[in-house]
Amino acid sequence: MFKSAESVERLANRLARLPGIGRKSAARLAFHILKLTKEEAFELADIIREVKEKVGFCSVCNNISESDPCRICADPERDKTVICVVEETSDAAALDKAEGFNGMFHILGGRLSPLDGIGPDDLKIQELLDRLQAGEVKELILATNPNVEGEATAIYLSKLFKPMGLKVTRIARGLPVGSDLEYADSITLTRALEGRQEF
Amino acid sequence: MFKSAESVERLANRLARLPGIGRKSAARLAFHILKLTKEEAFELADIIREVKEKVGFCSVCNNISESDPCRICADPERDKTVICVVEETSDAAALDKAEGFNGMFHILGGRLSPLDGIGPDDLKIQELLDRLQAGEVKELILATNPNVEGEATAIYLSKLFKPMGLKVTRIARGLPVGSDLEYADSITLTRALEGRQEF
Repeated sequence: MFKSAESVERLANRLARLPGIGRKSAARLAFHILKLTKEEAFELADIIREVKEKVGFCSVCNNISESDPCRICADPERDKTVICVVEETSDAAALDKAEGFNGMFHILGGRLSPLDGIGPDDLKIQELLDRLQAGEVKELILATNPNVEGEATAIYLSKLFKPMGLKVTRIARGLPVGSDLEYADSITLTRALEGRQEF
Repeated sequence: MFKSAESVERLANRLARLPGIGRKSAARLAFHILKLTKEEAFELADIIREVKEKVGFCSVCNNISESDPCRICADPERDKTVICVVEETSDAAALDKAEGFNGMFHILGGRLSPLDGIGPDDLKIQELLDRLQAGEVKELILATNPNVEGEATAIYLSKLFKPMGLKVTRIARGLPVGSDLEYADSITLTRALEGRQEF
């Protein structure tokens, strides 16, 4: 696309290989990067290198981390009796940013998806079992995504861990705050009714 | 957001400062970059550095370029009697990719926008005048964007350059190929009628 400057073309091609970035977004991004000052662009390049050099995975919760165990697992202020199970690091980051949870996380690294050939052995389920067998944990919050595969994963985990005598909970599914009842889909409305609580 | 890995947080912050990238997209992008192999991530970092080190602007047409004059201006195969005037490099890249144009470009570096304080002196109009005064050019195609500011810029340029005895044309405004007449806005329809051609 940028016939006049081959390196910009290569940058756009490289960016277009990132998931969720199409040809046009990649070209626009490359163009924006070109417009940065030299300092800003070099800073960006350096952070990308740094991220790959420093960041690994926490051996306890499988979260991304610069240390092992990660900052969350090593934090003495957090409640070690509750583990919130999520699919991806970004889910844990979102939950951690929201108020109301001060426990630990466990990142599965995906969801059960037979169509994509992803079974229990491809997720960090054995590692979760090991954590639970240590005995300290009292509640397991299943916070996989509220879609077909996330629900299936939650059901699978609940069947696996409930017999261990743990309290196993699922995050509430219902109407998102600020939304319109009129535009909500019927499955969400059903779940909102099922999950109703005394006022 | 990524409390567990501070460098990922910094990468997301840096990406969020690029135009058109919000906090959430930046976090998702940072996460994708983290998932690249070390080689891929380093390649990305290196291209970003390379782009800033190599790419400058062509002194003739103001396009981004690794050489001066740029590849397009230096190409002996291209028709030097036609200059297509665009707002940004990305516009020139899009037109160059489409078939049917083999002339030269001139990148204004923006559009007239009195509300943003952008006047004729902020665009590369003097440079365009210099190119035209060299005498080789026969046609000037005004290809600024078909919106209010782009039209105003085109009108301004046409008033400036028509007295020089040049053929000054404007790219056609009409229905985009593959679109539905039913859903087109009325200004586009008016322009499509005005610009009708014999079949």
